[in-house]
Amino acid sequence: MFTKTTDPALKSFIPVDSENEFPIQNLPYGAFSTKENASVRIGVAIGDYVLDMAALESEGFFKDVLGDALVFSQPVLNDFMDKGKETRVKVREIISDLLNAETSTLRDDESLRAKCLHPMKDVTLHLPVRIGDYTDFYSSREHATNVGTMFRGKDNALQPNWLHLPVGYHGRSSSVVISGTDLHRPCGQTKADDADAPTFGPSRLVDFELEMGFFVSSGNALGDTIKIDQAEDHIFGLALVNDWSARDIQKWEYVPLGPFLAKNFGTTISPWIITMEALEPFRTESPAQEDPKPLPYLAHKNLSNTFDINLEVYIKPNGSEANKVCTSNFKYLYWSMGQQLTHHSVTGCNMRAGDLLASGTISGPTKDSFGSMLELTWRGSEPIKLSNGEERKFIKDGDEVIMRGWCQGKGYRVGFGACSGKVLPAKC
Amino acid sequence: MFTKTTDPALKSFIPVDSENEFPIQNLPYGAFSTKENASVRIGVAIGDYVLDMAALESEGFFKDVLGDALVFSQPVLNDFMDKGKETRVKVREIISDLLNAETSTLRDDESLRAKCLHPMKDVTLHLPVRIGDYTDFYSSREHATNVGTMFRGKDNALQPNWLHLPVGYHGRSSSVVISGTDLHRPCGQTKADDADAPTFGPSRLVDFELEMGFFVSSGNALGDTIKIDQAEDHIFGLALVNDWSARDIQKWEYVPLGPFLAKNFGTTISPWIITMEALEPFRTESPAQEDPKPLPYLAHKNLSNTFDINLEVYIKPNGSEANKVCTSNFKYLYWSMGQQLTHHSVTGCNMRAGDLLASGTISGPTKDSFGSMLELTWRGSEPIKLSNGEERKFIKDGDEVIMRGWCQGKGYRVGFGACSGKVLPAKC
Repeated sequence: MFTKTTDPALKSFIPVDSENEFPIQNLPYGAFSTKENASVRIGVAIGDYVLDMAALESEGFFKDVLGDALVFSQPVLNDFMDKGKETRVKVREIISDLLNAETSTLRDDESLRAKCLHPMKDVTLHLPVRIGDYTDFYSSREHATNVGTMFRGKDNALQPNWLHLPVGYHGRSSSVVISGTDLHRPCGQTKADDADAPTFGPSRLVDFELEMGFFVSSGNALGDTIKIDQAEDHIFGLALVNDWSARDIQKWEYVPLGPFLAKNFGTTISPWIITMEALEPFRTESPAQEDPKPLPYLAHKNLSNTFDINLEVYIKPNGSEANKVCTSNFKYLYWSMGQQLTHHSVTGCNMRAGDLLASGTISGPTKDSFGSMLELTWRGSEPIKLSNGEERKFIKDGDEVIMRGWCQGKGYRVGFGACSGKVLPAKC
Repeated sequence: MFTKTTDPALKSFIPVDSENEFPIQNLPYGAFSTKENASVRIGVAIGDYVLDMAALESEGFFKDVLGDALVFSQPVLNDFMDKGKETRVKVREIISDLLNAETSTLRDDESLRAKCLHPMKDVTLHLPVRIGDYTDFYSSREHATNVGTMFRGKDNALQPNWLHLPVGYHGRSSSVVISGTDLHRPCGQTKADDADAPTFGPSRLVDFELEMGFFVSSGNALGDTIKIDQAEDHIFGLALVNDWSARDIQKWEYVPLGPFLAKNFGTTISPWIITMEALEPFRTESPAQEDPKPLPYLAHKNLSNTFDINLEVYIKPNGSEANKVCTSNFKYLYWSMGQQLTHHSVTGCNMRAGDLLASGTISGPTKDSFGSMLELTWRGSEPIKLSNGEERKFIKDGDEVIMRGWCQGKGYRVGFGACSGKVLPAKC
């Protein structure tokens, strides 16, 4: 279960307390720039610091693994992702060793430390991936059941295909943004149930969707497929995802071709991507798939196909404190990442390094674990009370939505950093 | 109506006969490589030749317009697209003048001609755009009515939203390929109407969809919108598009989130992109939008928002001749490109140079103008007879589907080159 880079006993020479999401067992990837150097480059979070992977690269620390390729001096991770699992594991071993409290190379070299470690408070984080295609699944049985119940009643909640395949759709990649990017409330067409015709204006039902997404490492050529037992080897790592949604726009536009404008005004991801290697100690079982069993091309050999990742959502009204509104977990998802990736490529669709495949809203079995306001307030019929005395049915202008996610180890946390965004007033 | 670069009287020093799609009035952009120089670079089609834009660029012909930027020495048009309309028009004037029969610069310089003109038969064409996002609309009223009639009956053929907004969905950009790329029949899940459960195997209902698509030139920032009266200024040009579809996979997967795997195994585009400037003489009226009128944000000032582009589809069985199965026209589309682009960005969705927005299947009013086998054979109930004695309900292995499109001038044609692809046997 533990490898030498995930050993709970490991300590970095940089002090990291038990609540900090970036201990040496994590080593998540992001992109950053500094005041002194505006070039966006790749970094790894360690405690309250960012390890400058570009600086380490130019010092030759990865020469044995990467040769002369400069993958960390770039503004995005795509070229590194494309190198696949074996290279990623080797690089992880090198940086884990460099940061180890017992290794002197970086610890005792003040000049090297100055070049390679930047206080996190001094860096600007950037979207770390050039996302070729963004796909969004719908893989939480509880979420699909909740939404289906609201719109079609309890008996027809799940569509006939839902238990047979991971339902998904193509999303918009241009508007995937990094945590901290504020978004304007979208404008668009909506139609009231009792109206004869639609009207144009700001969406009145802006919602979050608590999701996670994974990035493809090495992909497949057009016409080839990714088999289920190799699917995880094509995954680089995971990030938190807020799939912002305008429910009223969605309702009017989505039949028959699916969500379009309701989802394309912004999708927020966490600044840090945790690799599959760092998540490995938190591997756990997915829900059983017995009735029906998946077709053979989607059948895992066993149930250990997901990870125990705690998820929380907070709403922070302008000038008030943050209110926790949801507590969920990645492990609730019915369809695994491997099943999603295999299904996506089964037609021969080519996946590319940096493609983002998101889970769909992650709702759990209890009311406080529902991953959207639509479900938490049951279409607005049961508003949430906030600590400042206000109520929320959906998201108001000035509200910041903050998602957090972490794996809990014994005495340490492996987390993603906040995935947050504020809704600004509409511009129409 | 005509400018100095579209004047029907213009002649190039390269002879171009009246059936050739690439007279001096066209000047479409593509990407190519040659045996002598494997670097993929930008070219313009002229008669049976390709004008090497990279060579002209390195000779300094665009210095006054582009400065030191090297936009044509790249494998894709994105950087040139991003420079917008004014730059594009100036470059067109320069190359139109260089190719003019009365201009000696290139005509009389044998060494320059050898560098800058390659016989088309000797070049390899490549996908000329890095497509960030690919969106597919559903903008033919006849197509939506045909499909709606088949699946829901005549009285409910059009969904309630269809006449109010250009229905569209996000497509898969990774699998957009250039004409001449063969595709394997996709495998996937399908379910017979009378079956209890789905099965896995090759799609039995592979279809083409006759579409056209436009590429965004300069886009908009996230949160901004593109207004209807400026929308065309954000369009670089058009290409032919075959949106290959697996009807049986689509039927089982598409509720409620829209087409996914049924469309992601390949989308073929023509090798040449015709600019808005070259299409201008063929501008014509779109269908009237009176009942209902579009909301103000989608309302054009007048009807001249489309182009008269003849479209044809051929099926060429393995070893047999090509059979024309469809004759349609771009002008049949109900929703204009401007309306599609404005609607797409109205939520603040950011469009980027090189984004591809396709029309959806372009069906006309008569049976021979339907743009898919689904409609031409009315779900297979009226097979098409081919000249080799065979019948077709859908596309068989070994069939090549060839789309052609051109504007007919007086004594000349402005065309896209064939958009073709062959269906190879499934690999499952």
